[in-house]
Amino acid sequence: MIVSSDRLNISDIVSADLSFSELIENSLKRYLSGEDEHYDKLWQSMRYSVSAGGKRVRPLLTLEFCKLCGGDPASAVPFACGVELIHTYSLIHDDLPCMDNDDMRRGQPSNHIAFSEDTALLAGDALQSLAFEIMLCEDTLSRCDAKAAATAAFTLANYCGADGMVGGQVIDLEYEDKHADESVVSKIHLLKTSALIKAACLMGCIVAGADSEKLAAAEKYAECIGLAFQIVDDVLDVTSTTEELGKPVNSDADNDKSTMVSLLGVEECLRRADSLTAEALTALDAFDGDSSFLRDFATKLSKRRN
Amino acid sequence: MIVSSDRLNISDIVSADLSFSELIENSLKRYLSGEDEHYDKLWQSMRYSVSAGGKRVRPLLTLEFCKLCGGDPASAVPFACGVELIHTYSLIHDDLPCMDNDDMRRGQPSNHIAFSEDTALLAGDALQSLAFEIMLCEDTLSRCDAKAAATAAFTLANYCGADGMVGGQVIDLEYEDKHADESVVSKIHLLKTSALIKAACLMGCIVAGADSEKLAAAEKYAECIGLAFQIVDDVLDVTSTTEELGKPVNSDADNDKSTMVSLLGVEECLRRADSLTAEALTALDAFDGDSSFLRDFATKLSKRRN
Repeated sequence: MIVSSDRLNISDIVSADLSFSELIENSLKRYLSGEDEHYDKLWQSMRYSVSAGGKRVRPLLTLEFCKLCGGDPASAVPFACGVELIHTYSLIHDDLPCMDNDDMRRGQPSNHIAFSEDTALLAGDALQSLAFEIMLCEDTLSRCDAKAAATAAFTLANYCGADGMVGGQVIDLEYEDKHADESVVSKIHLLKTSALIKAACLMGCIVAGADSEKLAAAEKYAECIGLAFQIVDDVLDVTSTTEELGKPVNSDADNDKSTMVSLLGVEECLRRADSLTAEALTALDAFDGDSSFLRDFATKLSKRRN
Repeated sequence: MIVSSDRLNISDIVSADLSFSELIENSLKRYLSGEDEHYDKLWQSMRYSVSAGGKRVRPLLTLEFCKLCGGDPASAVPFACGVELIHTYSLIHDDLPCMDNDDMRRGQPSNHIAFSEDTALLAGDALQSLAFEIMLCEDTLSRCDAKAAATAAFTLANYCGADGMVGGQVIDLEYEDKHADESVVSKIHLLKTSALIKAACLMGCIVAGADSEKLAAAEKYAECIGLAFQIVDDVLDVTSTTEELGKPVNSDADNDKSTMVSLLGVEECLRRADSLTAEALTALDAFDGDSSFLRDFATKLSKRRN
């Protein structure tokens, strides 16, 4: 009944001998290969933003945690791609005139500039639907237990919705130009950034059938690297040049926006980022497998300079 | 790990002796009972549109088809509510200035007028996430087979996304003020209206474990009543008064928009609506149970005058 089109079948991709990065790129490409004579610009607009050069941090975390928990990363690919689609939709909507009104994203025109405002809005909406479509389609369920797939998709819905990423956006907009105390700034970081990273890590564990102790450890790791990432982001906004950062610096100060740096100062922020990174590394002790990628990743994140 | 909050638990509601309408209203209320000191206006904005007096056509179809296929309607309630949340998000985004720019919806200020444009955008986004959250949460899976839940949620994602409702929106905007032939207008109706009705009917059948013959019949019924509904809508736009219709009449003609009426005339449209309704009734012959509600519903839909 339900037309399950070729764009939802990645069995040939996941059965080939590919790196995690290749698995993610090839699968995203397949999932976004829709076309239609009447609404083709919708698919073009969706592809435009997904292929705009993101680092695929979240999908890599999903696959790494799946592997770390002894699962088959092939079964986690749809969930890895799902979290990337949610991340991409949030960026498209974030850039819209009624939100941050950003004309540029990753050095290219934002989606609503390259296409139009209505197309960008709808491309974001369709990317969110597509995320759930790929995580729950027949092809995905042929490699993943249905209960695990449902629970992983639930986790993403839970962390990207009102009590997760979107809630964080609302607070962020609310405090765009007024004073926020440390607890509010922390809450924004937790919801706006850590929530989706948590979903990415948890989904990898869930698909691998990890126990509750491992799920708790993965969530701790995700929370810490998410918070560290945002603190370093705030620091770079005041200490970098525009050239180094690839985007305007001092944007927060120009907006009178409260940040961890304006509240605590650069030195204390760097100390906290180090301490959060140490906490993330400790959380990984709960796993028996090879966590070297995740350790390197957490360390590099807090030492990054752009 | 995943915080499963009280707002996702409707076990007390579905175990009480309630009518389908009460099941839907009480469950929607519970699912939308989120609150937070910092982003409370997000939940308020979501509640505002969901409680704005829709007729709950889609959720009723889900529960009726579940019952007709011999399933327990209690297990279908989250899917009934899920399709209503998707419908509501689409109305909020539809009304935004960059889309139809409608200040009023169902006799009340549109969401972005009552709140703000950014809040309305985010409320729509969060309603879409919430739809998938409620269909896949632990409470839902306690009453519904995980494979059926995943497949039902997939169906909704499939029909509300790029190749469904959103694709239909894109074509509709494209032909807002230029000539479309009959095949294009039909395609808009199929995607923009019938797709979500199909998802509503199919989800009820899927949760009840219906076979492929019944799924095909439910899809046929949904397609026919969706098309009949849109044709009658076009007719009412030229034959009603604003008072009868509760919204501006002749809006399509004012826009130079091609409609079934402008292409075929009122008489041929009414003939087609009758013939589609007859086809919908024939499709119901595939079911053994009591289909009187669905038969009445299809008949009333084509005879409605507002």
